[in-house]
Amino acid sequence: MKVLIVFAHPEPESLNAALRDVAIASLQEAGHEVQVSDLYAMNWKPSVDRADFPALDPGERLKVGAASHAGFVQGALTADVKAEQEKLRWADMLILQFPLWWYTMPAILKGWVDRVYAYGFAYGVGEHSDRYWGERFGEGTMAGKRAMLIVTAGGWAEHYSERGVNGPIDDLLFPINHGILYYPGYTVLPPFVGYRIDRFNDARFAQMAEALRERMRSIDTTAPIAYRQQNGGDYVIPTLELKPDREEAGTRGFALHLTPAG
Amino acid sequence: MKVLIVFAHPEPESLNAALRDVAIASLQEAGHEVQVSDLYAMNWKPSVDRADFPALDPGERLKVGAASHAGFVQGALTADVKAEQEKLRWADMLILQFPLWWYTMPAILKGWVDRVYAYGFAYGVGEHSDRYWGERFGEGTMAGKRAMLIVTAGGWAEHYSERGVNGPIDDLLFPINHGILYYPGYTVLPPFVGYRIDRFNDARFAQMAEALRERMRSIDTTAPIAYRQQNGGDYVIPTLELKPDREEAGTRGFALHLTPAG
Repeated sequence: MKVLIVFAHPEPESLNAALRDVAIASLQEAGHEVQVSDLYAMNWKPSVDRADFPALDPGERLKVGAASHAGFVQGALTADVKAEQEKLRWADMLILQFPLWWYTMPAILKGWVDRVYAYGFAYGVGEHSDRYWGERFGEGTMAGKRAMLIVTAGGWAEHYSERGVNGPIDDLLFPINHGILYYPGYTVLPPFVGYRIDRFNDARFAQMAEALRERMRSIDTTAPIAYRQQNGGDYVIPTLELKPDREEAGTRGFALHLTPAG
Repeated sequence: MKVLIVFAHPEPESLNAALRDVAIASLQEAGHEVQVSDLYAMNWKPSVDRADFPALDPGERLKVGAASHAGFVQGALTADVKAEQEKLRWADMLILQFPLWWYTMPAILKGWVDRVYAYGFAYGVGEHSDRYWGERFGEGTMAGKRAMLIVTAGGWAEHYSERGVNGPIDDLLFPINHGILYYPGYTVLPPFVGYRIDRFNDARFAQMAEALRERMRSIDTTAPIAYRQQNGGDYVIPTLELKPDREEAGTRGFALHLTPAG
C-alpha cells in the first residue's frame, strides 16, 4: 500500500520522532511505500484565513465554507494545501501521528485538517437535501482507503480507561476517528496509543516500538472500527438520528454509532 | 465580574463576530468589565515550538512540558503568552467563542490553549505523587473562577442530539469543558450553542441573539456542570478511576464524571 504519515511534533529528537521512524521502517520492510508530511519541518501554516483563498475578492466577506468550495472547484487553493490533497489522493492509507495535548491533537495538526479538508474534497461531497445528506461517514472522497492514529500520552492507561478521570480514550478520540477520518470515507483502524511517555527508559521504548511494529505489519488485515454508515439505513434522514432499537439495550453516547457485534 | 472573551473567527463581519458583540454589550449593560482576545486580529501564533522558550539552550532537546515549566517559573515565556496569562489572572470569568470546525475548536484557538496553558500555570500544579495527583479537575490556578463556551455549528441540533450521527454535543465538548476548562479549576457553565448558522436570516439571528443575551445576563447565577472533583473522594489514587457504585446504574462514558443529581 501507499501510506501517508502526517506527523506533528516540534522536536526531531523526540520519542514521537523515534516512533515515527520505527513505523516508517516497519512499513517499508513490509513492502509499503511511505510519504511523510512532517508539519513542523514544513513550517505548516495552521490558521485558516483570507490568504488561503487567493481567488476571493478582497472586498468580499470571508465565508469559510463558500470560499473553500470556490477555491477547490476552481483549483485556486494555495500550493501547500493542494500538495497535501494530492498526497491524500495518492495514499491508500493515512496515519496521523501526534502527542495528545489537552485531550486532542496539537494546533498545527488541527490546522492541517482545517485547511486541507476543503469543501468539495472532504465535506460537501454528494447531494445535500432533505432526502440525502451527502456522502460522508463511510462514504466520500476517501472511501476504500484506510486510516489510523498513532498517539502518545503523558498519563497512565488507567486514567484513560472506562472509568478514568480523563474519560475513555476511545471517546476522547471519537471526534477525530469518526469526525475527521470516517467522515470523508476512510475505513478507520483502532488507534495505537502509548501511555506514560514522559517516564521512559530503553526497555519500555523497545516494548512500545515492538507493539507499534506489530500494528504496522498488519495494516492491511487489522479489523476496522465498526462505525455505522450514515446512508446504510440506520439513520433517519434528514435529522440523522439513529433509528430506535438499532443498538443493544443500554448503549449510550458515541458507542451508539458502532454496529453491534454479532 | 471581569470577563475575558477569547474569540476565534477570521472574518470581522461574521455571524460569530456579531454574536460576540451582542455578548459584550449585554455583559457591559449588566455592569461587567470585558476584555477580548481576538486571536485573528492579534495574529496569534498557534504552534508550540522552540521559539516559545527563549531560555532553552539552543543545543538542548525540546521537551515541551519541561521547557514550559522552566519558562514559566523563570518568567521567561514569550510576551504574548505572558499577556494572555495576565488576562486570565485578571478575569473572574473566561469565555471561549468559536465556530465548531471538525467537531472541535479552530487551530488558532487550540494554539492559544497549547501555548498559554503553561506547566505550573494550568497543569503540573500541586504535588504529583502516587498519593496525590495534583490540583486539577476542579482545583488549581483558576479555582473560584467561571468559564463557558459560545459555539456555532453548521449542522442541525438533531445531528448533535443524544442519537444524532455527529455524537451528542455535550460529549463532543467534554474534552474542552472538562479537559481544558475544568482541568485548571474553572467552574464550567453549560455551553451556548447556535445551530444551522449557515442558513441565517434576520429573524433567526434576533432569536439567537436574545438567547445569548439571556445567558450573558445570568453568568453569575447559572448552575454549573456538576463535574466531580478529582480530589473529592470519588476517584482511586493514583489510577484515577471512579470508585465502584458512585454512579447511577447504567451510566457510561463521560457522564460518569458528573455528580448524580439529587
